Amino acid sequence: MNKLRTKSNIPILEIFGPTIQGEGMMIGRKTMFMRTAGCDYSCSWCDSAFTWDGTEKPIMYSPDKAFEEIYKIGGGGFDHVTITGGNPALIGQGMSELIDILHSKGISMGIETQGTKYQDWFSKSDDIVISPKPPSSGMVTDYTKLDFIINNIQSNKQNKSLKVVIFNEEDYQYAKNLHFRYPNIEFYLSVGNLTPYSEEDHTAELLRDLEKLCNKVINDPSLKSVKVLPQLHTLLWGNKRKV
Amino acid sequence: MNKLRTKSNIPILEIFGPTIQGEGMMIGRKTMFMRTAGCDYSCSWCDSAFTWDGTEKPIMYSPDKAFEEIYKIGGGGFDHVTITGGNPALIGQGMSELIDILHSKGISMGIETQGTKYQDWFSKSDDIVISPKPPSSGMVTDYTKLDFIINNIQSNKQNKSLKVVIFNEEDYQYAKNLHFRYPNIEFYLSVGNLTPYSEEDHTAELLRDLEKLCNKVINDPSLKSVKVLPQLHTLLWGNKRKV
Repeated sequence: MNKLRTKSNIPILEIFGPTIQGEGMMIGRKTMFMRTAGCDYSCSWCDSAFTWDGTEKPIMYSPDKAFEEIYKIGGGGFDHVTITGGNPALIGQGMSELIDILHSKGISMGIETQGTKYQDWFSKSDDIVISPKPPSSGMVTDYTKLDFIINNIQSNKQNKSLKVVIFNEEDYQYAKNLHFRYPNIEFYLSVGNLTPYSEEDHTAELLRDLEKLCNKVINDPSLKSVKVLPQLHTLLWGNKRKV
Repeated sequence: MNKLRTKSNIPILEIFGPTIQGEGMMIGRKTMFMRTAGCDYSCSWCDSAFTWDGTEKPIMYSPDKAFEEIYKIGGGGFDHVTITGGNPALIGQGMSELIDILHSKGISMGIETQGTKYQDWFSKSDDIVISPKPPSSGMVTDYTKLDFIINNIQSNKQNKSLKVVIFNEEDYQYAKNLHFRYPNIEFYLSVGNLTPYSEEDHTAELLRDLEKLCNKVINDPSLKSVKVLPQLHTLLWGNKRKV
């Protein structure tokens, strides 16, 4: 019994909320967050490096126990859960079971993943954000894998989008190429946060960077069907965790 | 010939863009704006009172001429037009023709209206934001009309949402009641701008109000399926017009 259970365990680094989703397609949505441990990437500017750099240890929860914790922490005042990481796509059976439990309680959910690994349970996710990492991350996109994922989710009815965080001109070109490669999936650009661990107020800087990115897109006739967004939580709460 | 044309003329107060949509369901979207003249409301805090208070005169354009102007001003670097007011739902045949022209050019469009008047062309709009005005506006919602509109757009495939601007506690209660009355339509709360004609920098104030509204929603277990958003353009560009 215990061995069977172990197969479904999910390595969890934090559960918090309800709060307001700060970025991408679901911006503004009241949601719980569950952050899984482990990542196949190590982006230079990762704002959640504690999920993969060994500084924090995950708790292993069965899907039932994960739901129980989400429910306890959220106090019942939510109907959506955002699962992010690390890379939640590294997890198989446990995630599939957790999604079924959430749906059975009338709770919708979404995931955010960089698009390096496909899981069958992607088709059950109510919303899915694929956020490939641009050159400034230091990571290299494997287009064979990304093509496979985009092709697989393309025909699903769920809300889906591509989101790229922009730090520099090279990132912007990378994002444009992605959009031209997958023109039929909603396309979001997000402003990069250069100081994800600073405790100072960077609001003015973040808004200035957002304005620059907006102006770039406004003046770029080759980019039309695009949404440019800030990280709302960073404007509101700085780099504080668990908000 | 001229008389026939007149029937379709659209009273236009401004056309600008491309820019980035600042609020609601289409937040972040690169789009052109066309603002129609005339409103059946006169909200106390209206940020576009020049559309109805007589201070500015509209130009009357045929749908063809309106498209020509949008295209000329936008320079071809767009594929979406947002039509706002004033109340664009006051306009009949001309709007229907303009939508057909836009669609024939591969351009999608959306409207924002307060939900006081239905038009058959609503069904052709790719996105539609119904933004009933809360008590602080001084306006009174006619629920017979609003029910009719919501019922009519409910089954359409287009993106649609309800959006309420919040200035105070009474507005918040009004918004909640709306959401409970129409639970199946996406529900957005937006932070009110108390100083829509000031030239000073109100960023800190606006972010503080947004934080307050977020905290209110976070701590309200009866509000679950909701999105809380700022007016991005006001954070970026203050109260400047035509951005």
